[in-house]
Amino acid sequence: MEWVYLPETNSWEEILKRPAKDFRALEDLVDGVFKNVRSEGDTALKEYTRTFDGATLEEIRVGPEEVAAAGQAVSPQLKEAIELAYENIYAFHAAQRTGPVRVNTRTGVSCWMEKRPISRVGLYIPGGSAPLFSTVLMLAIPAMIAGCTEIVLCSPPDTEGNLHPAILYAASRCGVTTICRVGGIQAVAAMTYGTESVPKTFKIFGPGNQYVTAAKQWASRLGVAIDMPAGPSELLVVADASAVPEFIASDLLSQAEHGADSQVILLTDDPDIQEAVDNALEAQLAKLPRQEIARSAMANSRGIVLKDREAITDMVNTYAPEHLIIAHKEEAFMLEHIQNAGSVFLGNYTPESAGDYASGTNHTLPTNGYARQYSGVNLGSYTKSITYQRITPEGLQGIGPAVETMARAEGLQAHANAVTLRLNTLNKVQ
Amino acid sequence: MEWVYLPETNSWEEILKRPAKDFRALEDLVDGVFKNVRSEGDTALKEYTRTFDGATLEEIRVGPEEVAAAGQAVSPQLKEAIELAYENIYAFHAAQRTGPVRVNTRTGVSCWMEKRPISRVGLYIPGGSAPLFSTVLMLAIPAMIAGCTEIVLCSPPDTEGNLHPAILYAASRCGVTTICRVGGIQAVAAMTYGTESVPKTFKIFGPGNQYVTAAKQWASRLGVAIDMPAGPSELLVVADASAVPEFIASDLLSQAEHGADSQVILLTDDPDIQEAVDNALEAQLAKLPRQEIARSAMANSRGIVLKDREAITDMVNTYAPEHLIIAHKEEAFMLEHIQNAGSVFLGNYTPESAGDYASGTNHTLPTNGYARQYSGVNLGSYTKSITYQRITPEGLQGIGPAVETMARAEGLQAHANAVTLRLNTLNKVQ
Repeated sequence: MEWVYLPETNSWEEILKRPAKDFRALEDLVDGVFKNVRSEGDTALKEYTRTFDGATLEEIRVGPEEVAAAGQAVSPQLKEAIELAYENIYAFHAAQRTGPVRVNTRTGVSCWMEKRPISRVGLYIPGGSAPLFSTVLMLAIPAMIAGCTEIVLCSPPDTEGNLHPAILYAASRCGVTTICRVGGIQAVAAMTYGTESVPKTFKIFGPGNQYVTAAKQWASRLGVAIDMPAGPSELLVVADASAVPEFIASDLLSQAEHGADSQVILLTDDPDIQEAVDNALEAQLAKLPRQEIARSAMANSRGIVLKDREAITDMVNTYAPEHLIIAHKEEAFMLEHIQNAGSVFLGNYTPESAGDYASGTNHTLPTNGYARQYSGVNLGSYTKSITYQRITPEGLQGIGPAVETMARAEGLQAHANAVTLRLNTLNKVQ
Repeated sequence: MEWVYLPETNSWEEILKRPAKDFRALEDLVDGVFKNVRSEGDTALKEYTRTFDGATLEEIRVGPEEVAAAGQAVSPQLKEAIELAYENIYAFHAAQRTGPVRVNTRTGVSCWMEKRPISRVGLYIPGGSAPLFSTVLMLAIPAMIAGCTEIVLCSPPDTEGNLHPAILYAASRCGVTTICRVGGIQAVAAMTYGTESVPKTFKIFGPGNQYVTAAKQWASRLGVAIDMPAGPSELLVVADASAVPEFIASDLLSQAEHGADSQVILLTDDPDIQEAVDNALEAQLAKLPRQEIARSAMANSRGIVLKDREAITDMVNTYAPEHLIIAHKEEAFMLEHIQNAGSVFLGNYTPESAGDYASGTNHTLPTNGYARQYSGVNLGSYTKSITYQRITPEGLQGIGPAVETMARAEGLQAHANAVTLRLNTLNKVQ
């Protein structure tokens, strides 16, 4: 790991720079796939799946027998682990339910706000080397709690046209209503427009490669919402002598193994931890199956020595990390002042991987500095709020004149009229 | 108004069609302005303001003396009206505050979620014929309640380089920290990148013409969040014989006067109201100062007669109106079943214009069918949620094995290691 000592504030931006991605180069490709899927439906999906996934599909939807068979293929040990994760994720997201907000802003003026589920949502689960069934749990459980009536899952099949049993098992456990073996740009296009097999959805969730990311961005211009813009995963660890160097190293590496573009940063105000962390990193790296990926990511990583807890907090807020581990005696101070982070892990026995799988918090989080303005996926991501108001005659007599004055000052006479007519009627009656 | 009787369900999509807008044609223009503002800063802003607004600016920021003078120029009557609106909007949005959500998902596994303000937000207020100071209230009051530290307002100046006093007055009343006389694409670019005068912001709110809309869409691809995608304003009224035809007509027209592209729809299961509504529309239209605009909008409007309350509810959910007025005896049934709407107005004495100005609900709402998946602007629009977790040694012994199992099943050995190392340490200690 490259170490930087007491960098000047004006160099922070450069030190914390993330790799920039521009998806405009992919837009023509994405546009073409979307148009084809829109006009040809399932036929286009099958063609793209043959081309990109090397699979010839008969059915795009996965049928109930196949889901049942998948249940048999998952080991009891993994099922038990999924069950524990399910319970914790369910408990934490169910606790996020909120009731209506009701206020009588004036006598006779009653306003309230209530949440309603987004009726149809789409979940994208990447394929490739690892079956990301944990992401199925993270995306489907809150959708189920929110009361979404259609929960559509798309994931690219292997060359045999199959989805991994653990994905099918998790999907059926978490209330997914339609499972489709289709991935890439074409899956996002299908959930945007709907095809014979894939229902049209109103919001699309989930991670993916650059094609999926570009496709989600495209979908968001066509009237579909997306969970959040995507970027490479990242971890920032804040540590001092109260931290255990081996634990720090293991956390940094768990992030680094995600991909060569993963971002890993260690902040400390205690330069004495450097040697122990570096040694632990080297010892652990040597034993990793995904060593090559992790080494590439660690080559871009930084250890940064800062002056004090204030400087650390400032740098965390500047970077706005997706994942933040704090193993530092000034934890209380930092918790009070840190404003920008996706998910925070506190103390020596709270590894990021606990939150990735089973503590209960969501692992779909804002990357790329988006923690400044975006939340990670939560129950609210699957709902929208509607406001309501009911005004009595007395209430309108109270606020009506103000409405008339403001509407006229904005040059909107018909807005004023809607009040004036009603007030005149009330005056006649009295 | 054109009337449609008992349309077949398969014709609904056609009947409810909104005018489609595609902003791709504007993208090259937008891209050019953004690049210029990024590289030239204030110089570019001044040039564009000279070209597009016909104003030569010395200072882009509005100074405190100018704001104070504006306070003198606003009539006491308008100030009083603004004060009443302020109080109601403040009360309704302050009631939306929520505390942390805390759950112990297992013994020793503590998870919580807290909201934090988005530190810097940008508000766009359109210029043109009418000074939309009401939108200043709607966008700035919740920003202030949320605790955003920088609230930047941009609005295009008149040819003298001035902003309307009512806008300046409302901005200073609602805690706006920086007011800039700059509008159009260049204003959105300035809030995206920051210039010498305009602070960089993380989320941009507010309505605007097609250029502003295209610029916000562009900004959202460059790492800035936006409140929601925009479209023409729209109102759907549900009425039966319990409604007052003159009131219905006044509400339809208050929507129609917004612009020729405004959408106005009336649903009823009582065809007898048609004549009285048509007559009231004609009588009121004749007296409107913005008659021409309102007539154009009404030319695209529809009265639709449906079979029963179920069909009405279904059509409301299909259309997902920005504003929904219900003046119908089956209000309770409809409230229970309507899932998609921005803001709902109940009964004969609740005109949309009350919510546009002063009842307390927000008037920045999802148009174009986005009420299916987007909320109107609310307190939560100015915050993001951070999740936290703290796991004790006992807690990690409880969930650690599940994490190890799941991580290995996903092929992520370093994720498992971060737990294994810690569990091994605990086992040694015991």
